[in-house]
Parts: sequence; structure tokens; C-alpha cells
Amino acid sequence: MWKSCPTFVRLVCHPNHFPLSHGCRYVSKPATKTQVEFDYNGPSMKTTVPGPRSQELMKQLGDIQNVGAVNFFCNYEESRGNYLVDVDGNRMLDLYTQISSIPIGYNHPALVKLVTNPNNLSTFVNRPALGILPPENFPDKLTESLLSVAPSGMSRVQTMACGSCSNENAFKSIFIWYRNKERGHNTPSDEDLSTCMINQAPGCPDVSILSFMGSFHGRTMGCLATTHSKAIHKLDVPSFDWPIAPFPRLQYPLEEFSRENAQEESRCLEEVEDLIVKWRQKGKPVAGIVTEPIQAEGGDNHASPDFFRGLRNIARKHGCAFHVDEVQTGGGTTGKFWAHEHWGMDDPADIVSFSKKLLTGGYFQKDELQPYRIFNTWMGDPSKNLFLAEVLNVIRRENLLEEVTRSGKALLNGLYELQAQYPGILSRARGQGTFCAVDVCDDATRNSILFKVICGVEFRVWTWLDLAS
Amino acid sequence: MWKSCPTFVRLVCHPNHFPLSHGCRYVSKPATKTQVEFDYNGPSMKTTVPGPRSQELMKQLGDIQNVGAVNFFCNYEESRGNYLVDVDGNRMLDLYTQISSIPIGYNHPALVKLVTNPNNLSTFVNRPALGILPPENFPDKLTESLLSVAPSGMSRVQTMACGSCSNENAFKSIFIWYRNKERGHNTPSDEDLSTCMINQAPGCPDVSILSFMGSFHGRTMGCLATTHSKAIHKLDVPSFDWPIAPFPRLQYPLEEFSRENAQEESRCLEEVEDLIVKWRQKGKPVAGIVTEPIQAEGGDNHASPDFFRGLRNIARKHGCAFHVDEVQTGGGTTGKFWAHEHWGMDDPADIVSFSKKLLTGGYFQKDELQPYRIFNTWMGDPSKNLFLAEVLNVIRRENLLEEVTRSGKALLNGLYELQAQYPGILSRARGQGTFCAVDVCDDATRNSILFKVICGVEFRVWTWLDLAS
Repeated sequence: MWKSCPTFVRLVCHPNHFPLSHGCRYVSKPATKTQVEFDYNGPSMKTTVPGPRSQELMKQLGDIQNVGAVNFFCNYEESRGNYLVDVDGNRMLDLYTQISSIPIGYNHPALVKLVTNPNNLSTFVNRPALGILPPENFPDKLTESLLSVAPSGMSRVQTMACGSCSNENAFKSIFIWYRNKERGHNTPSDEDLSTCMINQAPGCPDVSILSFMGSFHGRTMGCLATTHSKAIHKLDVPSFDWPIAPFPRLQYPLEEFSRENAQEESRCLEEVEDLIVKWRQKGKPVAGIVTEPIQAEGGDNHASPDFFRGLRNIARKHGCAFHVDEVQTGGGTTGKFWAHEHWGMDDPADIVSFSKKLLTGGYFQKDELQPYRIFNTWMGDPSKNLFLAEVLNVIRRENLLEEVTRSGKALLNGLYELQAQYPGILSRARGQGTFCAVDVCDDATRNSILFKVICGVEFRVWTWLDLAS
Repeated sequence: MWKSCPTFVRLVCHPNHFPLSHGCRYVSKPATKTQVEFDYNGPSMKTTVPGPRSQELMKQLGDIQNVGAVNFFCNYEESRGNYLVDVDGNRMLDLYTQISSIPIGYNHPALVKLVTNPNNLSTFVNRPALGILPPENFPDKLTESLLSVAPSGMSRVQTMACGSCSNENAFKSIFIWYRNKERGHNTPSDEDLSTCMINQAPGCPDVSILSFMGSFHGRTMGCLATTHSKAIHKLDVPSFDWPIAPFPRLQYPLEEFSRENAQEESRCLEEVEDLIVKWRQKGKPVAGIVTEPIQAEGGDNHASPDFFRGLRNIARKHGCAFHVDEVQTGGGTTGKFWAHEHWGMDDPADIVSFSKKLLTGGYFQKDELQPYRIFNTWMGDPSKNLFLAEVLNVIRRENLLEEVTRSGKALLNGLYELQAQYPGILSRARGQGTFCAVDVCDDATRNSILFKVICGVEFRVWTWLDLAS
């Protein structure tokens, strides 16, 4: 996967899912076609990409919606495990996994079995309004799926339909908690009730969320006020005057720059405290701090466990909720199910949001952040919880977290070797699990690698460049 | 369905889906249980509601998440057509249809068939990132489903995961369109690009969306700035200083108050124009106007086609986009597929958003509102498009829009008769299709009707009261 950011250009290679090449067998579509179990043993290119059929479909779809970001059309029936097959019969090793949202590969037999199980039929056909009329198996399915991977100190979870909705509602939970804390009780005044109807304070208070430069937390308007990775996401959309802190810019290799990096992280933490004080003085107090454990969309920026422990303490000291956004990092890519587990804390966060590889959106929360006013029509989708429960079974049964750690080491060692071999071109190789990255010296070189080196075949790798340029 | 609003209390009875009692047969779960075709012929109550099993599950779910709004737990396997069966074996006529999101009843055989069709398996198992790697059948499925019901003058559609995301992204489309219009071209300045990264103007401009008091457009932060139906939705969440116009308060029966109602609508339209001028002078120009064709959540407030035609003209005159939010009204409940069709206009809107009974979220848009920067991970869910295509087939095959008009008339006539019979208690009977409502004189009377009269059985009808109090 490739990413660009305003000043640096990085080749980022996090497969974001579990390698499945060791002994997994795949079952193709049942009944109407011949039932065959098979694995692919490598990529196989038949045309340039996008091929003629993709181009034809792109024209057709272009009459209906914007196709500026479409790379090619897929044959998902024929895709298996790590291999994505396109409509022109090209088979590619998929490092991108649908923007990191396919947890155990395409057409995994465990998931195919789940859809064909008649006991699950009703869950697909009858999508309920979960907040008012949940199905009988809903508590059990939550326990089996999300609660079985609950972050340390958290036993409450709210599902949502996507990552942005998860963060939007997590922010709302934080605001409600913060205002109740300020009031000293949960009962709003008449003035609160009347002013909020016309978008005015004190009912709609001037409180804020502190975020980091380089962060990505989604594209709906609340989330977007905390997203600062690329201008193209934010341009032309009204926003809030909320504080934005610098995220550490570490120097690599880490062992050679430990003093400099510690100083850099201290500088950022000091700036966080300064901003909290400054925004309090401005009358826009910081109700919560939101951070990714690894800034993904912003260019794979890492920080040390010490940095995050310091940040968590600052949040506690200033009475701000600490929200860890694991939409991109959650699900095992870093070698632990949650990236924040690498910090080694019993009480890592007040809110942890998720989506993508967890297939359903949502967030875990501490008991005290339990507001009764978070609600919408669907509140998630129980059919996605079914899939997640099965995905977690596969991860456990096949020890996939260990496999991520093992293959992540191989991947990172490979990047180290490459950057030693091409010192003027590649630098800052870094990673956790398979969430690995390396910087390329400039755009042209990056593009040349993109178009010529990967897989030894000249084809277009799907990329954020279309969106970023 | 019952609703309350700050000053009035209404008994609102819009079934929001198609009556299915005429000749439809339902197929129960296949394979593991005996395959039986059957209809229910009426409600059947075994316990008070919530019954003992529901209470047990409520306790279990209460340990995991807030259950303040949960009414009871459902047995969706046993539910059929208009009848919802709970986990205690109670069978109820469902006027509420999962907050108006079940279009053709529970376990419709056409939808059951769709899930069990092996050709659809891959669509359920492999959820793609639609914006970059759509499946081969995506253009065809869009044509078959959404485009086949495209509002007049619109041939472009963008899918989204839910109603709030649809409105959030529709607003963003409006802002981008408006700013490009202001600039006179699509190329942002360096200042635009740098300021937007820190949430400041001109990159994040101070532009606004005009909405109506009583409206509901969702609960994420952008949507919430245009939602003004109940304080409980908005309280404690920061918002934008955007203009809010009065929505007409019509007097009934309409034929007796035609002059007064015309005056009331003129007053509201004048206020809209005044606000547009005022906000332009404040430096927060109105980029778009958003309205529901019938304010649903706000208490079933109707306005005449003349009002909406006037509003559309004001939008055009002042260069604002006109956004019709059909999340609640779209899908046929008013007797036409879109409620705005009752206005009889060739060019009713610039953007029409939808969700709920359309099973997928999204919005239609005019060509000129086609921005290339609307994007997120999933951009909808193709498995929901499959369902929608089949739902539309059923609506056409069974002439359900005509049936809505027919049964809506019967329902409204019944309400007229009731209000004539109880003049001090019921008033303002109104409706379009089955989207019908009547006001009750006060809370206590409403509650007494709720708990005692409906279906002649004393059970708890699911209600917004829990959320509104």
C-alpha cells in the first residue's frame, strides 16, 4: 500500500490481515457451480490493469457515480485468501485488503459456512432496530464476539454501522459525560434544554476534542474536525475550533536516536498540556483526547509506549476522556488484537473505537462513560456480529496473532535489508506486526517502484494517490 | 407509533410499510426445521410485555450496554409479514417496523430466497471497499435497484451505510459545490489547503445549511446541527451557528383553514428568505436548505405542495442547493415512492437522501453536485442493494403503492371518524398514504390509549417516550 503526505513520501506495506498460506483450504461457491477446494499459489497476470472488462464497467459506473478512485472491478467469487481476482482474470496478492477491512481473506470457508447455515437466515433477512427490539441471541453474540476481545478494564460495548459513526458517537458520549461532570449531576437546566434546540450554548456547549496533526478519525463532520492527514478530506467543509497537537516525528533506527526521540515525545506531550490549558482559558475546554495507536492514513507514524502512557496520564490529570481510535489498528495486524496492548497498561483508555476488520463498527467504554442518549435506527447490524464471532474463532484456532508477529518480523527484516541496499532511496523502515512501512526519497521514485517493481509485473497497484492528488 | 414534542402530544400511526395481508404466503426457515408456509391471522398475546424471557435478556444485555430504550426481545425467525413475535411468544401487529426500516414485512419469501441463492453468497461474505474495488455486478445492481426509482431529473446516486452518513455526505457535497461556485473553479488556493488542515477558514469555510425547527436529519454532528425535534438528541453536543426557520403549523381540517394555512406558509417562506439574507450578512452564507417532505420525528408536520415549490424557488433564487431528506418518507409509505412526488415538480431537488426502507443509505444528486471527494471505506454494502432490488420487484409486482393509497385512505377515514366521536380528545387527523397521524389532548390521555386501547390488550407498545423523557 502506498501513501503520500504533504512533506514525505512513504511506501507503506501493511497487509493488514493474517497470512493464510499455511494449510488453509478454500471452498468455492456451492450448488450452482462445481464445489472445489483450492488454494492459489501465486499471482497471475493476464492483462494490464485495469483490463478491458474493468474499463468497460468503469464507463458504465461512471454514468451513475464518480469513479475517480476506482482502480478495477473484482471477481469476488473467484478471489481466495490473500489473492484478489479481477474481472479480467488477473490474480493479485492483496496487501490492501479493502482498505484494511478483510480480516481473514476472501471467501474463507468458515464464513461461507455461516451464510449457508439456515439457522442464520433470519439474521440476514430481518435487520432490527437494535436499540429497541434486539433479537434473542444478541447478548450471547456480543459476549461471543466483541466482549471476548474487550480491552483491559472495559466490559461495555456499543455497536455502530461504520467507523465514522463509531467515532461520532464516542465523541458524543465524551461530551455528555463531560457536561454531566461539570454540572455535578445528570439533570439539564431549562436553559440547557431550550438553547440546545437552536444550536446555542449552554445546551450545545463550546467544548472540544484534542487531536493530533497527521491523524485520521473519519470524514463525517465531527470526526473531520479531528482528522488532519490530508487537505483533500477537509477542504470546503465547515469545522470546529478544536486544539491540534503535534504527533512525535521519530528518527530511525530507534536504537540510534533514543535520546532525540524521547525529547521529541516530551515536546509533544508538553504541547498537549499547553493546548489543554490554552483552550480552557479560551472557554472551549477539552472534554477528550483522541489518538490512533499508530497514525495510519497520516503516513504510518509510530510513537513509544512511554508516549502513550504519558498521554493517558495527562488526560487523567486534566479530567479529559482518553479515546483510542483502533478503527485501523484493531483486529490483530500489530501482533496483538489491539495495538494499545503494546503499551502494557491495565487502564489504557476510557473509550476504544473500532470498525473495518471487526466488520461491525462500535466502541468499548468505561462504565462512567455510559450515556443513555446514544441512539440511531440500526445501531449496527447483527449479521456482522455473526461474522465477527467466526473470525475470532479462526484467529484463535489458527494462532494467527503469533503468525502476524512471525511474518511481521520477516517483513520488517526484509525492509531493513532493502534500505541497507538502497540507502539514498529507502529509509525509516518501521513496523509492528505486519503494520510495516518504509519511506521512499521522492514521488517519482516511489511511483517507479509502484509501477515496475511490485510482483515483478507492470500493473497498477491500487493506491491512495488518486484521492490525495 | 407514538411521539411527543415540546408543546403537543400526538398519536402517530404510520405503519410505514406495505400491508401484506392479501394473498402473501410466507416460508419459514428451511432445512433444520420443518418447512411450512403460513400467514398469521391476527395478534396473539400470551404474557404482559416485556414478558419474563425479555426481562431476563434485558438484564443480561444491561451488563453489556445501555438498555434504556429496549422494549422487548424478538423472535425474528417466527415473525411474519406485519406480525412481530417476541421471545415470550406474543404476536403483535407491528405498526412501527423497526423505526420504519422494514419495507415489505418480516421474512418475506422473496428475501429469504435471495439469501439462500448460492450466486449471492460471495456478496454477503466479501464486503468490498466500493469506492475503489467494486464487484462486477455493481453497476447492474445499482441500475436495477436505486436508478429504477431515481427522482425526477437525477441519474447519479452514491450509496452510504446509514441515514446519518447519507446526510453528512450530502452536506459535504453541497459545501464543496458551493465553494467551487464561489471560487469560480475547482482549484483550491494554497491558503485553502493550509488552513483546512487546522480547521480554519478559508479552507474550512464558515458556510451553513438552513434547516427547520421540528426537523430530524440524524444524530452525527453535522446532521445534528440541522436536527431540531427533541432536546434530548442535541443536549451537550457542540454545534454550528446555522439558521433555523419555522416550519408551517397547519390548522385542520385543511378545507376550513385554506386562507390561514396559506398565510402561515407564506410567513415561513418569508422567514427563510430573511434568514438567508441575514446569514449572508453575518459572513456565514447558506450553501444549502435541507427539509423533510413530512417532518416525521418532529411530530408529523405536513406542508402543502405550494410551500415546497416556493421553498425550491427560494433555494434557486439565492443559489443554495435544495436537499430533500427522504430517509423517513422514501420507499412508498406516502403512496408514491418518494414523498416529494406529491409536489408535482420536474426538478424537485438538487439532492435527495434516503436510508431505512431502502435498506442501504445514500443520496441521489444533480450532475453539478458531483464532487470527487466523497469517500469512505465501505461506501455502502452491496448485499443491501441485492435486497433492495428484490423489494422493488415485490412493490411493483404486487402494486403495493396503490395498496398504500387505498389502505391509507381507510386509515385516515378511521381517524376522521374517531376524532368526530371524541372531539375533546383527538384532533388534527392528517396523513398521506399510510403516513397518518392524529393529536391527543394531553400526555395522560395519550398514555391511557397507549396502554389500554391498542389491540384491546394491555401491553406496552414500543415508544419514543423512553428516549424523549
